[in-house]
Amino acid sequence: MAKILLIQGANLCWLGKREPEIYGTTSAADVDEMVRDHAEKNGYDVDIFYTNHEGECIDRIYQAYEEGVDALVMNPGGFTYTGYAIADTIKGVAPLPYVEVHISNQAARGIESATARAANCVIHGIGIYGYILGLEAAIYLVENR
Amino acid sequence: MAKILLIQGANLCWLGKREPEIYGTTSAADVDEMVRDHAEKNGYDVDIFYTNHEGECIDRIYQAYEEGVDALVMNPGGFTYTGYAIADTIKGVAPLPYVEVHISNQAARGIESATARAANCVIHGIGIYGYILGLEAAIYLVENR
Amino acid sequence: MAKILLIQGANLCWLGKREPEIYGTTSAADVDEMVRDHAEKNGYDVDIFYTNHEGECIDRIYQAYEEGVDALVMNPGGFTYTGYAIADTIKGVAPLPYVEVHISNQAARGIESATARAANCVIHGIGIYGYILGLEAAIYLVENR
Amino acid sequence: MAKILLIQGANLCWLGKREPEIYGTTSAADVDEMVRDHAEKNGYDVDIFYTNHEGECIDRIYQAYEEGVDALVMNPGGFTYTGYAIADTIKGVAPLPYVEVHISNQAARGIESATARAANCVIHGIGIYGYILGLEAAIYLVENR
Amino acid sequence: MAKILLIQGANLCWLGKREPEIYGTTSAADVDEMVRDHAEKNGYDVDIFYTNHEGECIDRIYQAYEEGVDALVMNPGGFTYTGYAIADTIKGVAPLPYVEVHISNQAARGIESATARAANCVIHGIGIYGYILGLEAAIYLVENR
Amino acid sequence: MAKILLIQGANLCWLGKREPEIYGTTSAADVDEMVRDHAEKNGYDVDIFYTNHEGECIDRIYQAYEEGVDALVMNPGGFTYTGYAIADTIKGVAPLPYVEVHISNQAARGIESATARAANCVIHGIGIYGYILGLEAAIYLVENR
Amino acid sequence: MAKILLIQGANLCWLGKREPEIYGTTSAADVDEMVRDHAEKNGYDVDIFYTNHEGECIDRIYQAYEEGVDALVMNPGGFTYTGYAIADTIKGVAPLPYVEVHISNQAARGIESATARAANCVIHGIGIYGYILGLEAAIYLVENR
Amino acid sequence: MAKILLIQGANLCWLGKREPEIYGTTSAADVDEMVRDHAEKNGYDVDIFYTNHEGECIDRIYQAYEEGVDALVMNPGGFTYTGYAIADTIKGVAPLPYVEVHISNQAARGIESATARAANCVIHGIGIYGYILGLEAAIYLVENR
Amino acid sequence: MAKILLIQGANLCWLGKREPEIYGTTSAADVDEMVRDHAEKNGYDVDIFYTNHEGECIDRIYQAYEEGVDALVMNPGGFTYTGYAIADTIKGVAPLPYVEVHISNQAARGIESATARAANCVIHGIGIYGYILGLEAAIYLVENR
Amino acid sequence: MAKILLIQGANLCWLGKREPEIYGTTSAADVDEMVRDHAEKNGYDVDIFYTNHEGECIDRIYQAYEEGVDALVMNPGGFTYTGYAIADTIKGVAPLPYVEVHISNQAARGIESATARAANCVIHGIGIYGYILGLEAAIYLVENR
Amino acid sequence: MAKILLIQGANLCWLGKREPEIYGTTSAADVDEMVRDHAEKNGYDVDIFYTNHEGECIDRIYQAYEEGVDALVMNPGGFTYTGYAIADTIKGVAPLPYVEVHISNQAARGIESATARAANCVIHGIGIYGYILGLEAAIYLVENR
Amino acid sequence: MAKILLIQGANLCWLGKREPEIYGTTSAADVDEMVRDHAEKNGYDVDIFYTNHEGECIDRIYQAYEEGVDALVMNPGGFTYTGYAIADTIKGVAPLPYVEVHISNQAARGIESATARAANCVIHGIGIYGYILGLEAAIYLVENR
Repeated sequence: MAKILLIQGANLCWLGKREPEIYGTTSAADVDEMVRDHAEKNGYDVDIFYTNHEGECIDRIYQAYEEGVDALVMNPGGFTYTGYAIADTIKGVAPLPYVEVHISNQAARGIESATARAANCVIHGIGIYGYILGLEAAIYLVENR
Repeated sequence: MAKILLIQGANLCWLGKREPEIYGTTSAADVDEMVRDHAEKNGYDVDIFYTNHEGECIDRIYQAYEEGVDALVMNPGGFTYTGYAIADTIKGVAPLPYVEVHISNQAARGIESATARAANCVIHGIGIYGYILGLEAAIYLVENR
Repeated sequence: MAKILLIQGANLCWLGKREPEIYGTTSAADVDEMVRDHAEKNGYDVDIFYTNHEGECIDRIYQAYEEGVDALVMNPGGFTYTGYAIADTIKGVAPLPYVEVHISNQAARGIESATARAANCVIHGIGIYGYILGLEAAIYLVENR
Repeated sequence: MAKILLIQGANLCWLGKREPEIYGTTSAADVDEMVRDHAEKNGYDVDIFYTNHEGECIDRIYQAYEEGVDALVMNPGGFTYTGYAIADTIKGVAPLPYVEVHISNQAARGIESATARAANCVIHGIGIYGYILGLEAAIYLVENR
Repeated sequence: MAKILLIQGANLCWLGKREPEIYGTTSAADVDEMVRDHAEKNGYDVDIFYTNHEGECIDRIYQAYEEGVDALVMNPGGFTYTGYAIADTIKGVAPLPYVEVHISNQAARGIESATARAANCVIHGIGIYGYILGLEAAIYLVENR
Repeated sequence: MAKILLIQGANLCWLGKREPEIYGTTSAADVDEMVRDHAEKNGYDVDIFYTNHEGECIDRIYQAYEEGVDALVMNPGGFTYTGYAIADTIKGVAPLPYVEVHISNQAARGIESATARAANCVIHGIGIYGYILGLEAAIYLVENR
Repeated sequence: MAKILLIQGANLCWLGKREPEIYGTTSAADVDEMVRDHAEKNGYDVDIFYTNHEGECIDRIYQAYEEGVDALVMNPGGFTYTGYAIADTIKGVAPLPYVEVHISNQAARGIESATARAANCVIHGIGIYGYILGLEAAIYLVENR
Repeated sequence: MAKILLIQGANLCWLGKREPEIYGTTSAADVDEMVRDHAEKNGYDVDIFYTNHEGECIDRIYQAYEEGVDALVMNPGGFTYTGYAIADTIKGVAPLPYVEVHISNQAARGIESATARAANCVIHGIGIYGYILGLEAAIYLVENR
Repeated sequence: MAKILLIQGANLCWLGKREPEIYGTTSAADVDEMVRDHAEKNGYDVDIFYTNHEGECIDRIYQAYEEGVDALVMNPGGFTYTGYAIADTIKGVAPLPYVEVHISNQAARGIESATARAANCVIHGIGIYGYILGLEAAIYLVENR
Repeated sequence: MAKILLIQGANLCWLGKREPEIYGTTSAADVDEMVRDHAEKNGYDVDIFYTNHEGECIDRIYQAYEEGVDALVMNPGGFTYTGYAIADTIKGVAPLPYVEVHISNQAARGIESATARAANCVIHGIGIYGYILGLEAAIYLVENR
Repeated sequence: MAKILLIQGANLCWLGKREPEIYGTTSAADVDEMVRDHAEKNGYDVDIFYTNHEGECIDRIYQAYEEGVDALVMNPGGFTYTGYAIADTIKGVAPLPYVEVHISNQAARGIESATARAANCVIHGIGIYGYILGLEAAIYLVENR
Repeated sequence: MAKILLIQGANLCWLGKREPEIYGTTSAADVDEMVRDHAEKNGYDVDIFYTNHEGECIDRIYQAYEEGVDALVMNPGGFTYTGYAIADTIKGVAPLPYVEVHISNQAARGIESATARAANCVIHGIGIYGYILGLEAAIYLVENR
């Protein structure tokens, strides 16, 4: 059974409360439920980890690698802006597949992600549904290693 | 039955032959077959249109809108660099959903897409499988209008 | 009787439908009628040409020059962004007078026109009425060659 | 009877004497006469104000607004470069219509006007005749408020 | 009794009328009254000077210095953009304390003040109340010279 | 009784010891005492939180919001440079008032604050007294919600 | 017998008529004759293709590749500015040799060619004679494959 | 007898008081006396004009031209930063010789003068003595017209 | 006996595993052993601290200063990109000597270190041996205080 | 008999040894022989001059001009980066024809030549054969003066 | 008797022959004679040194310093563009006075001198007469050390 | 016995005299003695070469390579700014080890070295002692080839 780690980066604990005109009104708990449902239906294991600390995020990725996680899905949230060290971490644990998800359209908002360059797949702009697409991308990558 | 238009922009006719270390070896015909299979299995109509002409691409989008197409999926290919007029076209036919697909990782290659700002969803970096994710994104957008 | 060619560049076929909060709700057909009325009242010939293809636009300008057209009025529309080749064409047919018209205020929107540097007169910001001012500018230029 | 204020900004007092290969040889007095003739023929009131002082220009615009002037036409001349405060003034007296006129082609000369972003209409490149087109634009804006 | 000069720079005469969504609806006269009340209650002298002319602003600062004014509070208004000469003036009259006040948040609007580099204190973003904070800063600076 | 949270960001624990020619010689403990005195005299509650960890800062702001704190005053210190995630946090807990304080003049030092764009009020350049002005700004904002 | 395709890009149909002070007075027909003479004398086949359409240019290159053309010589003309898609096409048909020719000195005019990065040889600045040098370069590349 | 106008731009009235570590301690009155002595000894007429107003500076240059002044020497002072309109004025009164003087070394301070591009001679870095060199340059230019 | 603190910044815990073509295959444990050997042979005390958290790094430096550490050697690793707050910390504990070490050549990779400006010595490009050179530099600085 | 000077700039003495994956393995002596053969076969005189000193290169060009050399062919090598003074020298000896040769494709490598703006012809990308094309260009220029 | 060294930098040996529309037709020999005449009349010693080699220029300045030269006047010519090492040399021999002379107006031509930042006086734009002004500046600096 | 070449680039002949607040007061002769002592104690041969000429520096490096020198240590001095040709030379003699030394902290002074990208090791900021570290790095590189 594939094991996927979903990291929700800085400020995503506040989903549904912060700037809902950009990020929608679905709460973090709703996302968790949606993700767990999807995992159950598709027969894989998912671990969800929320953090506002860049250092914790790095530690968690190394730990995941050592625990034998099969793929990483992450919405870097506030780490998007200056997460260069996280990008190095992800490149350091290659070939662990990494799928990056953003709720809003990064191109339309003129945001350049510091972590996207380390990704096997990037999905943005389609709201909360991006997590589902991201998990499917991760499964595909695990199955086609 | 939903109708989706898939546009393959400049140079995608040459898929599998051009720079395979970046774009892989799957040919344009293989992609077409994969897409048509997916359409059949998921019960929607797909029209695939290849063009190396920006003006033809614009004309085709307006025509699609008038024919009642439900969503547009496009890999802009060579239109990625300076396709500002296409981006205006897509904004002009809003709220027609638009999903943009790139085979390679645009962030890792330092490419900024001129058309991505007009998209409801952008997917890049996961190779040919991006078309499948893109079509699923389009179906989701059609069903959740 | 003076002969004027009015070119409506990329996306102007969609006038009145595309982003009406920027471009207004007057349709392409309304503009054509307004322009033809003005031509009739002011005693000159007008030919209106819509195209979404940069190459067609270039071809049409050379053809116009060879047919003895007296002046060119153009709203470059989507050619505004990267129409450097069109600008070279217009400089190539000098001294044929060229008047450039934009419906919205280019300065307020931070848009720099690739074709404006080749113009004898540029008018922008006053909506559909800009076509009338542009045609009057063209007539002035023809009469004061 | 509509009242229009025409402001001639920094250095325009010297028209016809300064760099005639760019600005032509028509003098400031000639422009005044041409403008007054046009006003008489078209049945509106025009007040012409020359100033080399940015502060005076700002004061004059506020005064015009309070006197009930219907529209402002201005060739900012030397205020073009850094007239950000004037642009704020014009936005402050909105919805007073503002038409900006330049004698030469700003795009061809690579000049970006600090005041154009506040305009309802911008006309440049057609020499002294731009004042006539500018006044017609102003009348149109007054009549279509 | 401390003497403070408050300069209201370009366009501030129009306060409450210009772009009220940014600057609020309090008028220049209301600000004057609020400031004079504060001066009376706190036992200092205040002189309020409105000008749209950069040169007048410079002259007034030198004059203030020679009259023995104890501190300068200024909202540079339209001088914010290119008031480098005013900044030099203020540095020239050092150690006369200078407090700069802006009604809106300059950082949020992406505006860089040409005069702020010469200030002992800068306050922005808190609307009309910034004048009260600015006067208190000035008093503190006078008392702690 | 209003409750205000004062956050002292990265390196402010070292106040009075680090680069005293820029930041003065008042120690962190002196500031705390000055702030507590001010709170007592003005009848409000203040909580002072020192942290060198960006993630802790974000966590603390969310916690403050949930505990019903009325306003946030922060000197971001070392978070000034790249604290984009903190800025998103503050925008996420809007309308909680946020006042940003810097001891030195940011404009004179050419520093652009990543968090200032999220502030209701920014005060800089007046040394340790900026905390008093900042607290007064916060009280004003609480009272005028 | 070697087969060479010479593409004359946007605006080159107008050679000898457009900006003769830059491009000289030799007409397109003269160039064609000179090129055909050279082919005959040197015993190779040459096909000359004029187009103002970027899409047609791309189509023609793919067709040439499939027809077994041995080398491509192109003066991109107006495609020089934004012909990134053409550059991708040429890289897609590698190892087909590509020689780029410009009549004028690109460095002296500050023009950066979008297609030159895909070339095996670039020649510019020597006027019409550049075509002869370009054809010789192409023959050399064919013979030394 | 040659007539020279010396303009002392913004803030030069304060010479010897403002930033003496950069500009020295010689006062404006000392400079005036030094200049008048030099004029007397060298047999030319000098008129010295101090102004902090850019508009006044422009007016004075036009007036000087009409009064038959033979050369202009100016230390633009605070007009150095954004005096583009003054530069246009000077170009407008060409061939009136213009010599620009700065007390400090502009290159060492990284300052680019907006007016220097219109000068026949620029002298900077040698303190107050630059005025003497500037006047000698002006005399040379008058004598070698 | 001199006490030296060696900080291994973000991602260095992964040394030998991450991108070995850049950083080599020596593991973090190997480096620790090499460093401890060197300390023993040269008669000084070394404390090695690994962290992926910027805040922890700052805390550790302040603690080291208070514990009387004699010098700091650091490979900032992932803190290289945006460690401005760490640079401020190091400047805050001056005159504590700081030697910065990078395994790879920063100039060749186009990386600018945010912390290097605070260093007494920077060594890069010579792989793992840079730690030995860095420790020798630190000893030299301690002995030549 | 035409006399041509071929200058081999900085580092070209090392041809065939330096970075052969870019510059090939042909040695400087091989190039000399190839060039001398070509001269003999085509009936012109060639002088080959190697130098790593920019000043010597400038001296040699002036000397060549005075000796009546008919054309200059140069591969600037290491002078490509900052050889602005050489470019001035070449413009100073105009109309002496100058042909610039680079072995590799400058556009593909993102190198801008400081000397190319002074050339009558530039050839790059075709390896050692570029010298032959360059000499033919020089002969053409001599014959068509 | 004061001793002055005049250095004529790269390409100045060619004065009067190179680009006379910029630099005039006076030859290097004429300048030498004019300078020697001035030296004789004003009672100082002048040594004139021409060089196209940056290294020789540096050597000559150190030698001059050791020989007790009193001041350096230099027209850097071609060293203007990248003569940073010469600027360091001149700063190294401070307080030896240095006067920089350029024949043409550097500001009008958009040229930034790499050596000007090290000068006590810079004079440009007044042609050959700039040498005379430069020598007078040098004498003044020697006499007012 | 290993042979090391130490190159002292432009202006280092003047060490101890030039800007001692940056480079210290140790003279070039002192450095030479210190280096020779170190060589004797560590049993290697050192050759020290001073030059202010970039071309001589390039020649000397090629000569060293041919003489079988084992490593190059260089303080590029004034070649730091634009020594791109030297960098190419060093890359041309690879795998000859190259260690670059700077006396002052390049990062703190905002200087980017043109030659550092070609180095196996870069050391800066630790004054004259950097030469000792640099020689040790060179020995290490020789021993670990």
